[in-house]
Amino acid sequence: MAGLRSFIAEVPMNPLRQLRVMGRLVRRVTKTPGSAPGTLVHTGPKHMEEVRFHVIRYGVESLAEASPENVDECLALLDSDAVTWVNVDGLHDTDVVEKIGRRMGWHRLLLEDIVSVGQRAKVEEYEDCVYVVMPMLRWDATVAQVREEQVSIVLGPGYVFTFQERQGDVFERVRERARTGRGLIRKSGADYLTYALLDAVVDHYFSALEGVGHLTEELEEAVLDAPDQGIMHRLHELKRELIALRRAIWPVRDLLGMLQRSDVPIFGAPTKVFLRDVHDHSVQVMDTVEALRDVVSGMVDLYLSNVSFRTNEVMKVLTIMATVFIPLTFLVGVYGMNFRHMPELEWAWAYPALWAVMLALAAGMVFAFRKKGWF
Amino acid sequence: MAGLRSFIAEVPMNPLRQLRVMGRLVRRVTKTPGSAPGTLVHTGPKHMEEVRFHVIRYGVESLAEASPENVDECLALLDSDAVTWVNVDGLHDTDVVEKIGRRMGWHRLLLEDIVSVGQRAKVEEYEDCVYVVMPMLRWDATVAQVREEQVSIVLGPGYVFTFQERQGDVFERVRERARTGRGLIRKSGADYLTYALLDAVVDHYFSALEGVGHLTEELEEAVLDAPDQGIMHRLHELKRELIALRRAIWPVRDLLGMLQRSDVPIFGAPTKVFLRDVHDHSVQVMDTVEALRDVVSGMVDLYLSNVSFRTNEVMKVLTIMATVFIPLTFLVGVYGMNFRHMPELEWAWAYPALWAVMLALAAGMVFAFRKKGWF
Amino acid sequence: MAGLRSFIAEVPMNPLRQLRVMGRLVRRVTKTPGSAPGTLVHTGPKHMEEVRFHVIRYGVESLAEASPENVDECLALLDSDAVTWVNVDGLHDTDVVEKIGRRMGWHRLLLEDIVSVGQRAKVEEYEDCVYVVMPMLRWDATVAQVREEQVSIVLGPGYVFTFQERQGDVFERVRERARTGRGLIRKSGADYLTYALLDAVVDHYFSALEGVGHLTEELEEAVLDAPDQGIMHRLHELKRELIALRRAIWPVRDLLGMLQRSDVPIFGAPTKVFLRDVHDHSVQVMDTVEALRDVVSGMVDLYLSNVSFRTNEVMKVLTIMATVFIPLTFLVGVYGMNFRHMPELEWAWAYPALWAVMLALAAGMVFAFRKKGWF
Amino acid sequence: MAGLRSFIAEVPMNPLRQLRVMGRLVRRVTKTPGSAPGTLVHTGPKHMEEVRFHVIRYGVESLAEASPENVDECLALLDSDAVTWVNVDGLHDTDVVEKIGRRMGWHRLLLEDIVSVGQRAKVEEYEDCVYVVMPMLRWDATVAQVREEQVSIVLGPGYVFTFQERQGDVFERVRERARTGRGLIRKSGADYLTYALLDAVVDHYFSALEGVGHLTEELEEAVLDAPDQGIMHRLHELKRELIALRRAIWPVRDLLGMLQRSDVPIFGAPTKVFLRDVHDHSVQVMDTVEALRDVVSGMVDLYLSNVSFRTNEVMKVLTIMATVFIPLTFLVGVYGMNFRHMPELEWAWAYPALWAVMLALAAGMVFAFRKKGWF
Amino acid sequence: MAGLRSFIAEVPMNPLRQLRVMGRLVRRVTKTPGSAPGTLVHTGPKHMEEVRFHVIRYGVESLAEASPENVDECLALLDSDAVTWVNVDGLHDTDVVEKIGRRMGWHRLLLEDIVSVGQRAKVEEYEDCVYVVMPMLRWDATVAQVREEQVSIVLGPGYVFTFQERQGDVFERVRERARTGRGLIRKSGADYLTYALLDAVVDHYFSALEGVGHLTEELEEAVLDAPDQGIMHRLHELKRELIALRRAIWPVRDLLGMLQRSDVPIFGAPTKVFLRDVHDHSVQVMDTVEALRDVVSGMVDLYLSNVSFRTNEVMKVLTIMATVFIPLTFLVGVYGMNFRHMPELEWAWAYPALWAVMLALAAGMVFAFRKKGWF
Repeated sequence: MAGLRSFIAEVPMNPLRQLRVMGRLVRRVTKTPGSAPGTLVHTGPKHMEEVRFHVIRYGVESLAEASPENVDECLALLDSDAVTWVNVDGLHDTDVVEKIGRRMGWHRLLLEDIVSVGQRAKVEEYEDCVYVVMPMLRWDATVAQVREEQVSIVLGPGYVFTFQERQGDVFERVRERARTGRGLIRKSGADYLTYALLDAVVDHYFSALEGVGHLTEELEEAVLDAPDQGIMHRLHELKRELIALRRAIWPVRDLLGMLQRSDVPIFGAPTKVFLRDVHDHSVQVMDTVEALRDVVSGMVDLYLSNVSFRTNEVMKVLTIMATVFIPLTFLVGVYGMNFRHMPELEWAWAYPALWAVMLALAAGMVFAFRKKGWF
Repeated sequence: MAGLRSFIAEVPMNPLRQLRVMGRLVRRVTKTPGSAPGTLVHTGPKHMEEVRFHVIRYGVESLAEASPENVDECLALLDSDAVTWVNVDGLHDTDVVEKIGRRMGWHRLLLEDIVSVGQRAKVEEYEDCVYVVMPMLRWDATVAQVREEQVSIVLGPGYVFTFQERQGDVFERVRERARTGRGLIRKSGADYLTYALLDAVVDHYFSALEGVGHLTEELEEAVLDAPDQGIMHRLHELKRELIALRRAIWPVRDLLGMLQRSDVPIFGAPTKVFLRDVHDHSVQVMDTVEALRDVVSGMVDLYLSNVSFRTNEVMKVLTIMATVFIPLTFLVGVYGMNFRHMPELEWAWAYPALWAVMLALAAGMVFAFRKKGWF
Repeated sequence: MAGLRSFIAEVPMNPLRQLRVMGRLVRRVTKTPGSAPGTLVHTGPKHMEEVRFHVIRYGVESLAEASPENVDECLALLDSDAVTWVNVDGLHDTDVVEKIGRRMGWHRLLLEDIVSVGQRAKVEEYEDCVYVVMPMLRWDATVAQVREEQVSIVLGPGYVFTFQERQGDVFERVRERARTGRGLIRKSGADYLTYALLDAVVDHYFSALEGVGHLTEELEEAVLDAPDQGIMHRLHELKRELIALRRAIWPVRDLLGMLQRSDVPIFGAPTKVFLRDVHDHSVQVMDTVEALRDVVSGMVDLYLSNVSFRTNEVMKVLTIMATVFIPLTFLVGVYGMNFRHMPELEWAWAYPALWAVMLALAAGMVFAFRKKGWF
Repeated sequence: MAGLRSFIAEVPMNPLRQLRVMGRLVRRVTKTPGSAPGTLVHTGPKHMEEVRFHVIRYGVESLAEASPENVDECLALLDSDAVTWVNVDGLHDTDVVEKIGRRMGWHRLLLEDIVSVGQRAKVEEYEDCVYVVMPMLRWDATVAQVREEQVSIVLGPGYVFTFQERQGDVFERVRERARTGRGLIRKSGADYLTYALLDAVVDHYFSALEGVGHLTEELEEAVLDAPDQGIMHRLHELKRELIALRRAIWPVRDLLGMLQRSDVPIFGAPTKVFLRDVHDHSVQVMDTVEALRDVVSGMVDLYLSNVSFRTNEVMKVLTIMATVFIPLTFLVGVYGMNFRHMPELEWAWAYPALWAVMLALAAGMVFAFRKKGWF
Repeated sequence: MAGLRSFIAEVPMNPLRQLRVMGRLVRRVTKTPGSAPGTLVHTGPKHMEEVRFHVIRYGVESLAEASPENVDECLALLDSDAVTWVNVDGLHDTDVVEKIGRRMGWHRLLLEDIVSVGQRAKVEEYEDCVYVVMPMLRWDATVAQVREEQVSIVLGPGYVFTFQERQGDVFERVRERARTGRGLIRKSGADYLTYALLDAVVDHYFSALEGVGHLTEELEEAVLDAPDQGIMHRLHELKRELIALRRAIWPVRDLLGMLQRSDVPIFGAPTKVFLRDVHDHSVQVMDTVEALRDVVSGMVDLYLSNVSFRTNEVMKVLTIMATVFIPLTFLVGVYGMNFRHMPELEWAWAYPALWAVMLALAAGMVFAFRKKGWF
C-alpha cells in the first residue's frame, strides 16, 4: 500500500491533466471549419525545432543509411532499385510534406491527413500507394500514463515513408533487423517492411496495456484495502484512460482486418499471411481493453459497496452506544428530580438496586444486539 | 471553480429550456397526421419575415453573385453552362419551394421534406437529382448550448440548391473559396460543391462537440471539487444534450457512408475520394459523442460516490462525538441523583477521581476510533 | 408544479392499471395451446355488439361509399373495375372473417391472424395478396395513456381490406382525401391506398410519443423540484410504457424496411418511393423511443441522487445540532452533581465563566463545520 | 397483498431450490469428458421405471393407435403406407434408443443427442432425416415455477419419432386433432405433423411466460406496497428464472428461423408457410422475455429507491426529534446545576419564563423543518 | 454456511493471487516488442525440466506407442502408412520446436505461435496443414480455481502434433479409446483424431464451468444468509474469473464455427458432422458463461440492497430508542432544576403523575412507530 500511496502522491490529479486527457477525447481533425480540403495546416503542437530525415535503402545484399539535412537531399536519395524507407520526424513544417507529396505524386487529401494530428486510424488506398495512419502508444512509466503520437505510413512501389510528430519511436528494432539482416526484411520488399512497422506499433499497444493493467492492479488492492475518495477519483481517471485507449485502438483493429482481407496488389501473398498475424494481435489488444473496462467497472461497484458497508458499520456503533445509554441516562435523570415526595430516595438499598437494574438493562441490550449479529 | 459557479449562475436551468430541449427529442416530421403526402406544410417556427435568395454562378474562369428579390428572378438566373448554387434562407413560405420544385421537376415528397423541419438526416436519390437533409449544428457560446438548424441540399445536373431555416450559416468559407478560386471548387462541378458543403457541415459538428467537451471538463472539475445537487442537474442536462447530439449525428454518419459507397452517377470518381474523407470525419464525430457519453456516465458514478462518501464522513463525526460523550453524560447523571444513601458523594477525592475516570474513558474511545481508521 | 400534482392526483396508480399494462407485456397470439392452426378464435375482448362494414369504391373520376348491413351485402359490392376499400370494425364474429376469407380465397393462417389480437407486427406475402398486421397507437389525453388497437390490412389486386378491433380509427383523413380527390389517391391503385393507410398509422405513433414525451417533461420537472416516492413509481410506469412502445414499434420498422426493399410485384415502383418515406418515419419513431428511454433512465439516476443528497443534508443538520450540544450538556451535567467536595460550585464567578466556556465551545464547533463547508 | 404474502409463505426459498435452478444454468451435454462421441449415456435423472411407447398411424381415411409393450413390438408397427408417429417416454434405457436407431439407420450422434438431457435447442439435418431437440416448458402452478423437459423429434420419410424424459406432454391436443380429423393433420404428411408438434411446444412457452408474468405483477405490487428484503430475494430468483428462460428459448427462435429459411426437401412448400407462423410466435416469445427482463430490472431500481427513501424518512424523524429536544435538555441541565451563585434560580418568574423560552425554541425549530418541507 | 466459511478461510484473497489473475487479463503474445516475426521465444514460465515426447501410431488393425528420448528419435517414428499422433509436453526448449518445424516444413509464424504462451484461440490454414491453438481449462478443486494451459494442434496429412505447456492433459480418454479400438478413432483418419482432441478440450470447459457454478451457488447462499464485505470481495473475484473465462472461450466458439463452415479439404465430410457437434457444445459453454455473468451481476445488486436494507434497519432501532427517550429525558431534566419557585415540586402526587405522563408518552410513540410499520 505504501507503494500506491506514494504513487498517488507522485501523480497528483490536477486541472491541467484533466484538460489534456479530455483534449484527447474531443479532438478535431481539421483546422478552421470550412477551409478548403487539401489545405495543409498542422493541427498539433510543435514538438521540435527542425524537421529531421532518416533514410534507409536496402536490398538483399546491402544496406545504406543517411540523415539528410533537408527535404531535397532526402528526395534525391530515392532509388528505384532498392527498398527505400524515409522517416520524417516533425510535422509542423508543411512545406516539407508539400514538397515530398508533389515529388511522389500523392493526392492532396493524403498530404492533409499527414499533417492533421488527432486522426482516427484508417487505411486509404490511392491509385499508386496505400496510406495508413494510426496512433503510436507508449507507456511512460515516469508519469504513469500512456503517451500517444500519430504515425503515418505511405507505402508505394519500392518505398515506404513514415511521418511522426516527434523524435523517438517504436521502430528501432525494425531498423536493427534491417541492419543485421536478421529475419525476412532484407529478403522482402517494401510491403514486408510496412508489415514490420505495423507489427511494431501494435506490439507496443501491449506495453501500454501492461502499464494500465499494472495501475489497475494497484488500484484494486487499494480499493480492497482502504477505500477513500481519492481512489474513486483515480478510478474515474482510469476509466477515462480506457475510454481513450478503446477509441484509439478500435479503428486500428478494423484497419488491419481490412488490409488483411483486401486485395490491394501492393501487398504480396506472403506478406498477407503476416498481416493476418498482426490483425490477430490487434484483436487480442481490443479484447484486453474490453476486459479491463469490465474489471474497472466492477471496481467501482466494489468501492461503492465498501462505502455503504462502512456507513452501515458506523451506524451500528452509534446505535449500540446510544441505545444502551439513552435509557440509563433517563433513569438517572429520574432520580435527579427534586420532587419533595419521592419515596425511593429515602430507601437505603435504592442506590445499589438502581445500579443492578441498570447493569441488567445494559447487558440485555448488548445481548440483543449480539443476537442480531451486529458485532 | 469561480468560473464554473458564475457560469452556472449565468445559465440557470429553467422550465422553458427543459421544454425546448425535450422538444428536440420528440419531434414529428409531418404536420397533421394522415394528411396527404406531398402536402407542403412548414412544421417549424417562422424565423424571418421574407425568404431571401442568394445565387452564385461560376465556371473555371469566372464567378457571378446575385441576391434576387423573389423566386422568379432567382429561377431566371439558372444557367446550364455554369455551376449554379442557389441558397434559400427561410422555409415558412411554401409557395417559394413549390415554385422552385415545379420549375426543376422535383418529386413532391422532396418538396415536403424541405419544408418539414425536424427531419432525420437522410439521402434520397431521385431520377434526376440527389436530396440530402441533415442538421447544421453550431456551438452558441453565449448560452453554452448547441444550436440546431435543418439544411436541405438538392444536387442536380449543374446546380445545387440549399435550403436553410434562417440566415447565417456555416458555408461562408465555401463561398470565400469559390470567390477567390482557392482549392478545387472552381475547377470542379456541382458534385464537388456538394461535397464542400457537406464537409463544412460536418466540420462544424466538431465545434459543437468542442463546446460540449469544454462544458464536460468544467463539470468534471466541479464534481471533483464540491459536489452539490445543482451539479447533478447539470450532468443530467449534459446527458440529454449528448442523447440529442447522438440522435442528430448518427444518421449523418450512415448517410455519408451510403453516399460514399453508392454508385450515384452524379458524383464523379474524384469527388468520391473526398466523400470518403468527410465520411471518416463523421465517424470520428460519432466516436467522440460515444466517448463523451461514457465519460459523463462515469461522472454520475463519481458524483454519487461522493455523496455516499460524504454521508459516511458526517456519520463518523456524529458517531465519534455521541459515543464519547454519551457514557460520560450518563456518569455525571448518576452523581446528580438525590438518593439519601450514596456513599461516594461524601468522599473527598470522589470528584477528581470521577474526572480521571471520565478522561480515561474518553481517551480510550478516541484511541479506539483512531485505530479503526475513522479519522 | 401545480399542474403535475393535479395530474398525478387525476391519474392514480392502481392495481388494475398495473395489470392492464402488464397484460400488454405478456400476451399470447393463439388461443388454447395446441389447437389446430387455422382455427378462427378471437383472442381479445369484445368491444362492440355488431360488426360494422364500410366500403369505398373509387376510380379517377368517381367515388362511392356504402355501409352494408351484413357481410354478404358487403362482398357483393366488390368491383373489379375500381379500387375497393372494405373496412371491418369488430373482430369478435369469426364467421364474418371466415366468409370473407372463403370468398377472397385467403390462406387459413391469414384469417387466424386477423382475429388473433395481440400479434407482433409483420408482413406476410401470400400468392395473391399481401397481409400486414400492426398496432394502431393513439394518445388518450383523458387518461394520459397510449391506447393500442390491432389493425390488419390485406392488399390484393384492386382491393384493400382493413380489420380493426373497434370503431374509430386513424384513417379518417385518408377517407377525406379520397372523397375530395386531393393528392394522388384517386389517381393511383390499391397499393397507394395501402401506403396511405400505413402512413396514417405511423403518423399517429408520433402523436403517442408526443404524449409520452410531455409526460416525461412533467415528471422531469417534478424530479428536479421535489422528489418523493410517488414520482419514482410514476417513473417506473413510464419505463414500462416505453418498454411496451418499443416492443410494439420495433417490428413495424422492420416490416416497413422489408416492404420497401422487397420485390412484391403488387407494389408499383412509384409507390415504393412513398414506402421509403414511411419507413424513414418509422426509423425516426424508434430513435425517439430509444432517446426517451435514455432520458428516463437518467431521471432515475437523478431521483436516486436526490434522495441520497437529501439524506446527506438531513444527516448534517442532525450532526451539527448533536455535536454542538452534546458536550455542553455533559458540562452542565457535571455541575449538577451532588458531591460534597466540588470547589468550583462555591466560586462566585464560576457560573458566568462556565457560560463563557460553553459559548466559546459552541462557536468553535460551528466555525469548524462552516469550514468543512457543511452549511 | 395478503395473497402475495401467503404465496411467498407457500413457496419458501430454500437451498435445494437454489441448487436446482442453478443446475439448469450450468448443465453439461455430455457425460464423462473425453468419452467417445456416439456413446449412449443418459445424463439426466431417471423419471420412470419403464420406457413407454405410443404409436399412431394414420392416413386421410383412417387412424390406428397402439401402446406396444416393448421396442420390438413398437418397431414392427412401422408402416410405409401411412404416417407413423412413435412417441417414446423415458430416456434412461439407452438400449431402446440404440435399437430404434439401428433399425431406422440414424447417425450415432443423433442417438447420443436423444439421451443427453440438457441440450441446447438445435436442428440437425442428416441424409435421410431431420433431428430437432428443444426444451418443453410448462408452468407448474402448484410450485409457481417453470418446469423444463427435453423433447427430441426425428422426422423421416413417413414417420415422426418423439422422445421425452417423462410421461405427460403438451401434445395431447395434437393427438386429439389427429383422432377427430379436425384441421389438416390427416390430410397432410409427416412434415405437417412435425410442424404441429413444434407449434404445440412453442404455444406452451406462452403459458410459461404468463405464469412468470403473473408472478412479476404480484412482486411489482409488493415492491410498491411494502418493500422488504424477502421481496428482493424473490426478485433475484425471478431474474434467474428469466435468465434461464432466455437461454432456453433463444436457440429455439434461431432453430425455427433456420427451418423456415432452409431448403430441406422433407418440408413441403405448404408446411413452410406454417413454419413461418410458428417462427413468428417464437420471436414474440423472445420479445416478451426481454421485456420482462427490462421490467424486473426496473423493479430492482424501484426497490432500492424505496429503501433509500425510507432511510431518508427515518432519518428525518430522528433528526427532528433530536434537534428539537437536544437544546431544551441542555437548558434544563443548566438550571439543574448546583452553583452557589446562580441569580436566576432565585427569581420568582424564572421557571415559567424558561418554559416560555423553550416552547418558543421548539416552535421555531418545528417551523424551520416544516419550511424545509421535511414533513 | 460452515462449508463456505471454511472455504473462504482456505482460499484467502492475497495480493499474489490478484497479480496472477490479472496477469491473465493483460498478457502479451509476443516477446520483446518489435522483434522479428518468426523468432522463436518462449513467453511463458518453464514448467518442467525436459521436453517429453509421446508418439502413438495406429491403423484399423494395430496401434503402437512410444516415448522417445529426444526430438530426433521422435521424428524418426513418423510413418506415412499410419496415423501418427505426436504429443510434446514442454514449450521452453525452442530448439525442439524449431527442429520439428523444419522437418515438417511448417511456416515460421506457426512455430512462433506454438511457443508463444497466452495466445488468443485461433485456427490458421497453411498450405499443407491446419494449425489450431486454444486454451485447455481445468477446474482445480484444491484451490477452487480454473487452471489454464495453452495447447497447439497441428493437423497435416496422416499426422497430428499436439504441444502443451506441461505434463498431464485432458486427452487421456482419447488415448484410451485409440488403444481399445472403441469408437471410430481407429477406423478414421487424422482429421477425426483432431476432432476427438478438440471435443475433449471443449468437454473440459464444462467441468471448469461446473466448478465456477458451484462457487457461484455457495456465494449466492452466503449473500442471502449473512452479507459481509468479504463476500463482496469474493464476488468481485468471481466476476473477474468470468471475464477471463469469457475472453478465453469466446474465440474458441468462433474458431469451431469457422472450422465447421470452412472447406478445408483436410477435414473429410464425415468428420464435418462431428465438428458441428463440438461447435454446438462450445456455443452452449458460451451461453453458460453469459448466464453466469448475469447471475453474478444480480448477486452484486442483491448484496448492495442487503447492505442498504440493513442500514435502514439499524437506523430504525436508533430512531425508535432515541425518539422515545429524548422527550422523557427532557422532562426529568425539567424537574431536576433548582429554581426556588417550582410549585409542582411540592405537590404530593406530582411524582407518580409524571410517571404516568411519561409512560403514556412512550406508549404513544411506540404505537405511532408500529403504525408506520417500523417493527
